[in-house]
Amino acid sequence: MDERSLIFPAHEYRARIERLQAGMAAQGLSALLLTSPADIFYATGFLTRFWESPARPWFVVVPSEGEPVAVIPSIGADLMGRTWLCDIRTWNSPDPRDDGVGLLVETLAEIVAPQGRIGLPMGPETHLRMPLQDFEAVRARLAPRRFFDATACVQRVREVKSEAEIGKIRSACTVAARAFARVPEFAPEGRPLEDVFRDFQIALLAEGADWVSYVAGGAGPEGYGDVISPAGPWPLQRGDILMLDTGAVKDGYFCDFDRNFAIGLASDTARRAHAALWHATEDTLTALLPGMLARDAHRLLSEGLQLRNVTPVGGRLGHGLGVTLTEWPSFTPLDDTPLREGMVLTLEPGCVTTEGRIMVHEENIVLRADGPELLSSRALEDLPMIRP
Amino acid sequence: MDERSLIFPAHEYRARIERLQAGMAAQGLSALLLTSPADIFYATGFLTRFWESPARPWFVVVPSEGEPVAVIPSIGADLMGRTWLCDIRTWNSPDPRDDGVGLLVETLAEIVAPQGRIGLPMGPETHLRMPLQDFEAVRARLAPRRFFDATACVQRVREVKSEAEIGKIRSACTVAARAFARVPEFAPEGRPLEDVFRDFQIALLAEGADWVSYVAGGAGPEGYGDVISPAGPWPLQRGDILMLDTGAVKDGYFCDFDRNFAIGLASDTARRAHAALWHATEDTLTALLPGMLARDAHRLLSEGLQLRNVTPVGGRLGHGLGVTLTEWPSFTPLDDTPLREGMVLTLEPGCVTTEGRIMVHEENIVLRADGPELLSSRALEDLPMIRP
Repeated sequence: MDERSLIFPAHEYRARIERLQAGMAAQGLSALLLTSPADIFYATGFLTRFWESPARPWFVVVPSEGEPVAVIPSIGADLMGRTWLCDIRTWNSPDPRDDGVGLLVETLAEIVAPQGRIGLPMGPETHLRMPLQDFEAVRARLAPRRFFDATACVQRVREVKSEAEIGKIRSACTVAARAFARVPEFAPEGRPLEDVFRDFQIALLAEGADWVSYVAGGAGPEGYGDVISPAGPWPLQRGDILMLDTGAVKDGYFCDFDRNFAIGLASDTARRAHAALWHATEDTLTALLPGMLARDAHRLLSEGLQLRNVTPVGGRLGHGLGVTLTEWPSFTPLDDTPLREGMVLTLEPGCVTTEGRIMVHEENIVLRADGPELLSSRALEDLPMIRP
Repeated sequence: MDERSLIFPAHEYRARIERLQAGMAAQGLSALLLTSPADIFYATGFLTRFWESPARPWFVVVPSEGEPVAVIPSIGADLMGRTWLCDIRTWNSPDPRDDGVGLLVETLAEIVAPQGRIGLPMGPETHLRMPLQDFEAVRARLAPRRFFDATACVQRVREVKSEAEIGKIRSACTVAARAFARVPEFAPEGRPLEDVFRDFQIALLAEGADWVSYVAGGAGPEGYGDVISPAGPWPLQRGDILMLDTGAVKDGYFCDFDRNFAIGLASDTARRAHAALWHATEDTLTALLPGMLARDAHRLLSEGLQLRNVTPVGGRLGHGLGVTLTEWPSFTPLDDTPLREGMVLTLEPGCVTTEGRIMVHEENIVLRADGPELLSSRALEDLPMIRP
């Protein structure tokens, strides 16, 4: 067996499956069906960028006892064979007559008694990564077995990270921190934003990212219009605030944080906004504790911003992080997910600077018994300036 | 309006919507619901890497007449506002009480009469990118309106590329060709494969990729075990065949082709396999015509391999390409999708070299009235060697 394909030793995955099975038992589930890249990677260590091809569905079935079963296209047999899984069933996909439906039905029928319950993530932040028509065929053919929502079952397990996982996220953060430190080298006044984005991705790879799944950002006077846009050919202007945000990946784990830079000069408004974002984060780093709810994190960050006389943005002010760029919970006034020791989270306060412009600031933490431990290297208190 | 955010002029999108609406009319659909990154980008020009976050669903509704309506999280309002769409409806997402369900139901109810039909891609190569529970709520609340599969409606439109789209794919191919030309600089004997992958991604960016959504490959004597694995720390050995495969992105459009290199020396088996792959491709470049079926492309490639006394791999030998790394059809013996002028396709023959090892070879083409036009720069006939 090739240890590299495992990412972690087999006992890490066994512990995950045992925790999933405990949750399944509480819900009376005889099996759990996983279809998403993140859930399948989490359960097996099967890591591939081949998910980028939407052509084929992939399935992992977790029984109530024992080891998971992979039901996958034969093109993945070699790689799945290098994970800890022993029971790997394949079909030659894509097959327009039956693209895995029969094999999945057979596998679930073997594991789940006719009156049994099958768990499937169907709730917030989940997608069923298989054709809907095929799922409806699977559901019909497995009756009287029924499907039940298993979103909470999966989320309560995945959201608490092991030390091994925290180490991977810390590594991704370290890569990003080194790349952010190099931004002044390639983001002078006059440089087109698309070239800055390109060089930032190159810096992330050169500093050790396996790949760069996410880069976004913006640039403008007093801030930017949004935080999800790709870059255009517009040159950086003196007085712009440049923000770069990245989800770089190490061994399948993401970082997700950003940094702001003033190009040549920074207005009082921009400096004040940056200081407010930094201090609101500082307050939260001091106050956040396990046992609080996601909405308490939103409250701490909002209050920290209001205390510094800036207006928080309307969206969420942070979220979970791990095997995807963002995970639940969401730091909004409406999310009452309990914060638990071992959760990896982003603190992401944003504020309005002027009409139609915002600034955001983000750090990554792991929540310990006594509060947050930073995984990202802390941003500078003063808005850094890139001088000509 | 910022033209860059449009990628193409508005008339390109209007023409797409008119073609979709013609397909919808043939099926009696009053609206088409799109949820996937590719379909939404195709209809609107909304391009963002933010899809990497699974937190929020996004919707575009195409009515039977007139312009599409975006029903999206407010975090995307700024960027969607820079596309050609005028009717943009937003909610503050994520919202655990109602994450867009109410707004989507309201929008569809306004467009579709109670006895009307709503199209949704539910078939092969599609996924519903929203929580299944939310979709079931939408479906129930919209009754007696019903949902029908619109996979073919979308696929028949998307699969025929405009000259503007072909230009984007050609640009992505040109970037990859320049990066492949640099592989000998960073893939000497002794170099760990993970470093080669990293440098290849850097080369793709340096040569002009906006981002690199896909890199895979392998290395070993006489070929590799699979073609979807990430790289490990194993050093390249003299006699290895190194294969790199990439989906680099320009303006939202992918290339998807690979190249093989012999490290220091090449066995007769490897040379013979490479020549067989190259000549089977050459045969197909000569013979493929619109009006043939996807399975004819499989037959041409298979026969070309068998003629050179190598055994084709069991999987598909090519596929569509465009706004995702892979699109339908699949070159298998079972796919009877008609090949049409303007389709962008990959020819991807693979053969077994020795027990458990394969070699693959890939080119990108656009199918013209008189046959394939290459978009990738043609591989060398002789397996190239990287000398110490």
